[in-house]
Amino acid sequence: MSKHLDVDLERLHRSLLRMAGYVEDAVVTAATALRSRDPEACARVVTGDADIDRLENEVQDECLKILALHQPVAVVLRRISAVLMITTDLERIGDLAVGIAERAAVVSRPPYVPIPEAIEGMTRRTLEMLRASLDAFVNLDTTTAARVIRADDDVDHDNAQIINGLVERMQADPALVEPALSLFTAVRNLERIADHATNIAEDVIYLVNGEMVRHHPEALKG
Amino acid sequence: MSKHLDVDLERLHRSLLRMAGYVEDAVVTAATALRSRDPEACARVVTGDADIDRLENEVQDECLKILALHQPVAVVLRRISAVLMITTDLERIGDLAVGIAERAAVVSRPPYVPIPEAIEGMTRRTLEMLRASLDAFVNLDTTTAARVIRADDDVDHDNAQIINGLVERMQADPALVEPALSLFTAVRNLERIADHATNIAEDVIYLVNGEMVRHHPEALKG
Repeated sequence: MSKHLDVDLERLHRSLLRMAGYVEDAVVTAATALRSRDPEACARVVTGDADIDRLENEVQDECLKILALHQPVAVVLRRISAVLMITTDLERIGDLAVGIAERAAVVSRPPYVPIPEAIEGMTRRTLEMLRASLDAFVNLDTTTAARVIRADDDVDHDNAQIINGLVERMQADPALVEPALSLFTAVRNLERIADHATNIAEDVIYLVNGEMVRHHPEALKG
Repeated sequence: MSKHLDVDLERLHRSLLRMAGYVEDAVVTAATALRSRDPEACARVVTGDADIDRLENEVQDECLKILALHQPVAVVLRRISAVLMITTDLERIGDLAVGIAERAAVVSRPPYVPIPEAIEGMTRRTLEMLRASLDAFVNLDTTTAARVIRADDDVDHDNAQIINGLVERMQADPALVEPALSLFTAVRNLERIADHATNIAEDVIYLVNGEMVRHHPEALKG
């Protein structure tokens, strides 16, 4: 690998991690705003999404510049293609955080629907998956990537449990149907954020193994 | 452009359109199954998703092979990068169709929640957007792409109208909360399919204009 290409790839990874930092902040702020009924924090997530979109454009432009300038093959080509896929996942996670913030703003107004305690654990697990998936990419660490993929089952379990509670709430009190539906959408968005972290982890395994694991995750369970 | 590259690009477009055909079928079958309460059709969508995943892998492998073999620059590089993005959107649309089919299977069982008539129009508009976005890509037609982006507002409007009706239904009859929630998720998935068609249209405009419109759609409205 040429010295020049090496420098460009390092810069690209830094840009990707910078974008990931913004995305992680958005998820933390949105999930905290949901639990603490904080409409100002919700508004910050919504306006902050423009930064994430801008960073996505920058990272993708960097990828295309490296492809055009160095015309890399094999490993480096796969690596840049993975960065392109990961930025798409990160941008969607940013959009999902905005969705949580918008629903959190509804939930912060009366009539107040009780916030299920399990959301806190689900948020923590989702954020751990997101961080670990990016660590796995930077370190090309398939063990960590496989751990992320397995952890998705726990988040799905949290999700199912919370949704069941919300259904009971809506059945018991028609006045809470609307805010409970907002909470339902926010929780589903959190679950989809975990799915995107899983996508990133699958991309890492594909990158390292050169095999398409994305659609055969059963190979990793055990 | 070399003759060889030309042939490879044509084959790539055919593969992409083949994948798009499978995805479109999945959406049509899932939406029809929802309206006609047809659990067998639901099961077909779920099992058929493996074909879509396989086609996504094939198209992406073709992209990487063309990149490695021809080391294209500028226009062709952007075009292949667009194909990579579009396959990701198509694969997600396939997943969303599976989500609709899974919810449709719930809705097909008692207690029966009435299916809002507006779903038919929303489905038709969403499918038109999906087809038009792919036409726009193949013909590099920004006028059609801009039309797709504008049409998303109509689908959002359908979505809001249907959701309001479902909220009223859940408030009026607690026994229908669970099936109405399944219908809610199915309708949201349909709306997200329209969002992915919008993404594809934005990619086309980016491809043609070399500008990143994805995050500045206001430039197209009017």
